[in-house]
This record gives sequence, C-alpha cells and structure tokens, in this order.
Amino acid sequence: VTERAIRTLEGADDIVGYDGYLEQVRPWVGLKRYHGSPIGQEVERSRLAITLAREGRRVALVSSGDAGVYGTAGIVFELLAEDGAEHEAERVEVVPGISAANTAAALLGAPLMSDFVTISLSDLMTPADTIERRIEAAAAGDLVVALYNPASMRRRALLQRAREILLQHRAPTTPVGLVRNASRPGQEVTITDLEHLPEHAVDMFTLVLVGNSATVRVGDRLVTRRGYQVTADEASP
Amino acid sequence: VTERAIRTLEGADDIVGYDGYLEQVRPWVGLKRYHGSPIGQEVERSRLAITLAREGRRVALVSSGDAGVYGTAGIVFELLAEDGAEHEAERVEVVPGISAANTAAALLGAPLMSDFVTISLSDLMTPADTIERRIEAAAAGDLVVALYNPASMRRRALLQRAREILLQHRAPTTPVGLVRNASRPGQEVTITDLEHLPEHAVDMFTLVLVGNSATVRVGDRLVTRRGYQVTADEASP
Repeated sequence: VTERAIRTLEGADDIVGYDGYLEQVRPWVGLKRYHGSPIGQEVERSRLAITLAREGRRVALVSSGDAGVYGTAGIVFELLAEDGAEHEAERVEVVPGISAANTAAALLGAPLMSDFVTISLSDLMTPADTIERRIEAAAAGDLVVALYNPASMRRRALLQRAREILLQHRAPTTPVGLVRNASRPGQEVTITDLEHLPEHAVDMFTLVLVGNSATVRVGDRLVTRRGYQVTADEASP
Repeated sequence: VTERAIRTLEGADDIVGYDGYLEQVRPWVGLKRYHGSPIGQEVERSRLAITLAREGRRVALVSSGDAGVYGTAGIVFELLAEDGAEHEAERVEVVPGISAANTAAALLGAPLMSDFVTISLSDLMTPADTIERRIEAAAAGDLVVALYNPASMRRRALLQRAREILLQHRAPTTPVGLVRNASRPGQEVTITDLEHLPEHAVDMFTLVLVGNSATVRVGDRLVTRRGYQVTADEASP
C-alpha cells in the first residue's frame, strides 16, 4: 500500500469496496462511513461511489492491485459516459497501485525486465478469438506474457490453448512462474516451464508469467536478460 | 512510495542509488551510509550493492518506478549469474513499485483497463528490428501500447516508425496520452491522437500511451472500455 493511498483514504468521508478489502483498510484509517459489498459487484459499487460523490461527499472506491488494470477505475469513467456526465471525469482522481503482474514478478525475481504484455484469459468481457489473437501476437513478438484470470472452475480451455500457441514459438524449456495469492495468506510461488505447466494447479487466484527467449533461471529466481550496456542518454536510474 | 519500500530503507545499513533519488530518500529514513552516483551508472551501482552485501551489510538499491521493469533488479541477478553465484539469488528481495506506465495511466484516466503491452524504444539493448517486430505484434493484437524511452536527443526514428506501424492497423483518431515527468516537478499531461502525435514534443522523460480500438475520451480523460458484465466467478474486486 502506498502513502498516497492511505492519505486518500484518510481524506475520504465514505469508503466503498469489497467487504474483504474494507476489513484490511479499517485498521489504517479513522472513523468513516463504510459501504461494503460482496465480491463480483464492481458495477454496483462504482455506481454507489458516483451517487455519493454527487451528494457532495468525498468517496474512496477501493480496488486491489492497480485500480486502472482490470480494476474499477475504468468502470467509473464508463458509467459517467453512460450518464452523459463526461464533464464529471475531471473530478475523479485515480490513485495508481502495484498491479498483480508487478507483485508476482518481484516474488519470482525480475522476469519483466524486457518488453511484456498482460492478457486476461477471462472470456466474459473479451471474445475468446480476440484473446487467442493477442496470445498469437505476444508469441510472435517474443514478449514476456503475464496472464491474468488464467482459469476458473468452469474455464480451463484458454490456458491450454495459450500454452499450445506459445509452444509454437518458444522452447518447451521456456521458464514459467506461477504466483498464487501474491502478498496474501497462502502465498505460493512456483517456477516451472512451458512443457511441465499442465502438471501444476492454476486457478483464478494465480498469476501465470511466461518468459521469452531471454528469460533464464538464476538460482531460485527468474530474470529476463537485457544485457546492460546502458548509457547516460537512455538510463532509467 | 509504498510502506514496504520505506520499511526496507529503514532496515538497511547502506543505501545505494542515483544521487537525485537519494536526495528524495534522505528525509524519510534515519542515518545511513549513502552511496550516490551519477545517472547512467546502473551496472556500477548494482555491482557495489552486491559487494557491500557480501561484506555482510544489509543494502537497499534504490530504483524509480518498479525496479523490476527496465530497472536495476534484473541487473543484480545478471551480475550474480556472471559471477557464478546463482545461489546468492535467494538472498535478494525485490520490492515491487508502481511502474511508469501505471503512474501515467492513472493521470490519463484508465487506459490500461484492457490487455496492454509495454515496449521500450531504446535500441541500445534491444535491436531495432526486434522492437519493430514487437510494435507490429502489438498493432496486430489490438493491444493498448505503453512506450518507454520513446525518444532521446539523438533518436527519434523509432517513434515515427511506431506511429506508421500503428496507423496501418488503427484509426488516425486513436487516442494517445503523453505524460512527461509523471509525479515530479514539471509534470505535463497531454491527450492527442495518432494523427496529431508529431505535433507534440516527446523526450526521454515522456511516457507515450497509445489506445486500442476500445479506447475513448471521457471528458478530459482516456478510458479503454471493457464492458462490465462481470460475474462473481471472474471478478477482480
């Protein structure tokens, strides 16, 4: 959690979020009006946040990871557009966070040191053929791949398909990192490879990170080699 | 800055980093041994951090954004491999941060709500034809694109080429966000489109974010529409 996120929560009148996250937030901040709701009600929560803000209240809408990456920030702007209230967009402040891919990558070592793509395998909001096309593109571009929502109880086919597509372009020994419940109780970090991926359990709490041609194991970690002939002109210190 | 980063700095004996960042760190933490160096000496700093750690000291190596995204985390692991000291990798803790793309996206609205790719246009460590191939892949896959190191004093051709490639697949009206000096003095946020991109100044302190077919303007912000028929099975609350 960032200092800025905590300051934002402290400055709010109302805090809206998934019940489980509000439990985590309560110890950090003072007395607030809390509006918790069960998992899976992102649109309702975003709508409530907008309604409260229009009543003149300062509202914090809590998201995990980065609210702008498959989170609730986009829903708020989509609802404002739906309301014909585009002018209210300027009143929204998006507080960035650490996305699940970055948290998982840090636990694995440094696999995102080179160009990478994040793809959600959830086919509820994106058609499966679009997802496949994106995996094809990632494979062709030798990009490191972070797969969000890789599988659920009812859905495993797209993960198998992703592996097939990647194996058409990458060696079976290409390193794969699996991070389940990153930074939460029950955290599990596994390093395997494309060939052995099917032997491991993958669920909706898992982030799957597939290396590219420059990704190697260094001890118990993964790193994507960049080479490091960095000059002052280009450095990102 | 995250709580965890500050705790890590507080627990360190030695802090190694670019002079400019150490200036920012000093007010937050107590008395430490500081090892500052000019910009562009990432390898030397990483080497120094390893040397100090081998002397038994707890060392914090400071990076901006996320140390694992075009940062110094990968250099440390590469140096350990070069030393034949892979077993020391387990002693390295990578503290994740908020990457420049996520910071820039929050200032722009929520352009990273759908699948996206980050590509560095610096051709010092990646051959220009590999970079072009990755832009082609991103364009073909209708991915939102975050361009790091888009241009420098001596280098502008790849940004022009990236625009040409993207225009082969995307409308000239595709939204583009430019964020210069994100969260720093002199911060500038500009929204334009692929057609008008050449009219704007872009330098090495700028993050260029190119939308995909689902990216729209909502008031003064950008959002990539996902649609939001989220079910409990897939939700990321």
